[in-house]
Amino acid sequence: MAKNRLPKQSEDFPAWYVEVVKQAGMAEHGLVKGMQIIKPHGYAIWEGMQRALDERFKATGHENLYFPLLFPESLFAAEKDHVEGFAPEVAVVTHGGGEKLEEPLVIRPTSEAVIWSTYATWIQSYRDLPLLYNQWCNVLRWEKRTRLFLRTSEFLWQEGHTAHATSEEAMEEALRMLEVYREVAEDVLAIPVLPGRKSPSERFPGAEETFTIEGLMRDNKALQCGTSHFLGQNFAKAYDVQFLNQQGALEYAWATSWGFSTRMIGALIMTHGDDQGLRLPPALAPVQVAIVPIYRSEEEHALVIEMSSKIRDALAGNGIKVRLDDRDQHRPGFKFGEWELKGVPVRMEIGPRDVEADQVVVARRTGGDKESLPVAGAIAGMAAMLDGIQSDLYDEATALRNANTHEVTDYASFVEGIASESGYWAGAWCGRVECEQKAATDTKATIRVLPVEREDPGAACLVCGRPGVERATWARAY
Amino acid sequence: MAKNRLPKQSEDFPAWYVEVVKQAGMAEHGLVKGMQIIKPHGYAIWEGMQRALDERFKATGHENLYFPLLFPESLFAAEKDHVEGFAPEVAVVTHGGGEKLEEPLVIRPTSEAVIWSTYATWIQSYRDLPLLYNQWCNVLRWEKRTRLFLRTSEFLWQEGHTAHATSEEAMEEALRMLEVYREVAEDVLAIPVLPGRKSPSERFPGAEETFTIEGLMRDNKALQCGTSHFLGQNFAKAYDVQFLNQQGALEYAWATSWGFSTRMIGALIMTHGDDQGLRLPPALAPVQVAIVPIYRSEEEHALVIEMSSKIRDALAGNGIKVRLDDRDQHRPGFKFGEWELKGVPVRMEIGPRDVEADQVVVARRTGGDKESLPVAGAIAGMAAMLDGIQSDLYDEATALRNANTHEVTDYASFVEGIASESGYWAGAWCGRVECEQKAATDTKATIRVLPVEREDPGAACLVCGRPGVERATWARAY
Repeated sequence: MAKNRLPKQSEDFPAWYVEVVKQAGMAEHGLVKGMQIIKPHGYAIWEGMQRALDERFKATGHENLYFPLLFPESLFAAEKDHVEGFAPEVAVVTHGGGEKLEEPLVIRPTSEAVIWSTYATWIQSYRDLPLLYNQWCNVLRWEKRTRLFLRTSEFLWQEGHTAHATSEEAMEEALRMLEVYREVAEDVLAIPVLPGRKSPSERFPGAEETFTIEGLMRDNKALQCGTSHFLGQNFAKAYDVQFLNQQGALEYAWATSWGFSTRMIGALIMTHGDDQGLRLPPALAPVQVAIVPIYRSEEEHALVIEMSSKIRDALAGNGIKVRLDDRDQHRPGFKFGEWELKGVPVRMEIGPRDVEADQVVVARRTGGDKESLPVAGAIAGMAAMLDGIQSDLYDEATALRNANTHEVTDYASFVEGIASESGYWAGAWCGRVECEQKAATDTKATIRVLPVEREDPGAACLVCGRPGVERATWARAY
Repeated sequence: MAKNRLPKQSEDFPAWYVEVVKQAGMAEHGLVKGMQIIKPHGYAIWEGMQRALDERFKATGHENLYFPLLFPESLFAAEKDHVEGFAPEVAVVTHGGGEKLEEPLVIRPTSEAVIWSTYATWIQSYRDLPLLYNQWCNVLRWEKRTRLFLRTSEFLWQEGHTAHATSEEAMEEALRMLEVYREVAEDVLAIPVLPGRKSPSERFPGAEETFTIEGLMRDNKALQCGTSHFLGQNFAKAYDVQFLNQQGALEYAWATSWGFSTRMIGALIMTHGDDQGLRLPPALAPVQVAIVPIYRSEEEHALVIEMSSKIRDALAGNGIKVRLDDRDQHRPGFKFGEWELKGVPVRMEIGPRDVEADQVVVARRTGGDKESLPVAGAIAGMAAMLDGIQSDLYDEATALRNANTHEVTDYASFVEGIASESGYWAGAWCGRVECEQKAATDTKATIRVLPVEREDPGAACLVCGRPGVERATWARAY
């Protein structure tokens, strides 16, 4: 079999990532620094994520809409933390239609500003609330150091922006969408995540609380996988969004926003990929079963293609995404390698002897021996086999994550431990930014996640020894 | 019944359009001149169009991908006609990440430049061809005079960009996608269109042939509904995209591009809308059936809601998009008006006497008397009723189009005719730009469409009396 020429993960994970993204046809760099081209195999995976999210957004009462790409630079400045966080990253349009613009426009790095300035005209009374809206779009945050999918100037995402009459309702919404993200990450992407809160220093600029789902990659570094923000009344105050409440008094509206981006394609690659390439969860794989016919003569070719086509049609009839790879310019070994590289969950091989015996060779991308199965059984059992692969990927990632999660109670063990072995390191924290900063300096790790509900950890702060107020999970991160 | 307060189409069509877009919650102007906000009801219709197109793109072998929003201004200049056509309309980014850029970047007005400069690296041999790719994205073409959906600086669309080994194959592709557009326009949007060719002066900048589907709106003005371009080797030459053909010789690749945009939401409104508001074809309606309960007392409310819920569930179970409008702050008459305005194909009214009689009142948005139908029959027959409404809308628009299509053989009749009555005016043309320009000046009309295959019209040019080379269809247009 033609082996894929990838660097080994264990030897150079970053180089492995670069090569697998390139060789599997996922993405490449654009002409402009920081920009990326998402290639068909990568984009098809994104479409799968979009479907999984969008159906859940609609099931929870949200509607899609679309706000403009550009807005005036001045508009941006209304929310102080927000502009401080994003102004350094914006791209600025100064000319349009051959003329210098009176006021420069920014390309959205996120849409709170343009959306909340519009909500001011949409919201008058409590009867107008809640607004439960989402948009699918591109955003731009200037970047010099680029990594495909993980950090690019332009990326694709969805951004939900909701408005509510009460703080409680907005908080419920923020947590509801965190749960939607968790479900999609775990059930569809097969990525086990830790849901929780960010520390104040890691919050979204302008948020009162940022919730996150956090994943641990195969190199033991953490990746923020999706965030949901409780924005309080900050944006309502910045853009003067008031409504008459049921008692007839004017009140500022309460806000949430939440986003999930093409970055998650990077998370998918780094959670499941191995030295042979991608391993795609069946729930997202654009091709779930690849059929590779094996033949030497014209006669064998006719026989093998006939049975392969029948199997393809039967699988497709059962709702399985199947591709018969009948390209004649490539040898079977080359095709095996390519489908492995692209992460297709199941490969079927069919040669003349298989046709004679009415059987087919089945290889699972998650490993184990190849099996010869009766054709009828392979067809009937394929949905269950794919479900099994979905679970295997999740279980394997969970086991790896658990094996690399460490509880610590003293600072020296934490600093030494994380220096020799990355992963999650969890322990009590006093809640003070001083300790957060000291540990970050000493370990190059950051607090990835705090429990959604603060709970007494019953231990002293790892860093300073003062009473702990909650349990923090640390890791080095992307 | 609460009547919608729209201007009459017959009195002021443009004002009717502005108001129906606003009152039906389809779109509104953004803060920046030329930008629009697509509101949920408008966006849901766009999602329907996207699904209809995307499934047909995939069924014809295309894959989606995504190219960057920004590219260098200099890249744009490689294809002379293309840059002349689009340069006056671009928005230019001069600053990013707090610094002045070394080279200004343009926001894509269309993506031929960025895509073909990349295809240069993807195409080496005839084995790499064809490339059949499409992207869904936003584009920006600076506009001062804006009409929501019809003409805005930023709009959403899909743009297909394919590369082929031969001219014939590229021409087949351009015509295949024209046919996809015709099918979606007619079968899904219920808009009868004339498919055909544009005259050279109306071609896409950089195209060798532009094909179009053309619709006639209810004010008798034409609207270009989707275009598919045969680009010859122009972009391959501009960006040096050569491949080794089967004979081992280097050749430039052949190109097509094709686009369908949110402008079609405007076409939908202006083809089917009436003085009461939108009329949505069931194939695209986000809500196909609205159920309005009618009650006075608490008891009546309970009875009526119970039966309404059962009907809703039964219709939903049959795959029909149904909404039970149980808002208690609005009276039935208000709801009738609102659903009419929003163009919902079927309204059901259910009062206490209907519950008693096990019947329901059904009103079709396309007109005719309200009917009292047995509940079981209304449920069982709803899919057929919706199909009927779909056909009715198409037939009505076709009849209107046909009634406003005029054949002319002499210039005076053409000029006088179109001055008193707009619509399509068809007659022979010699193919010379001089005649095209003279008639455009005299009539304010343009050639909307020529037959895909040139055919001798057997008559003299309407304008100059020289022998006609083909039949041209003229109209005043958006």
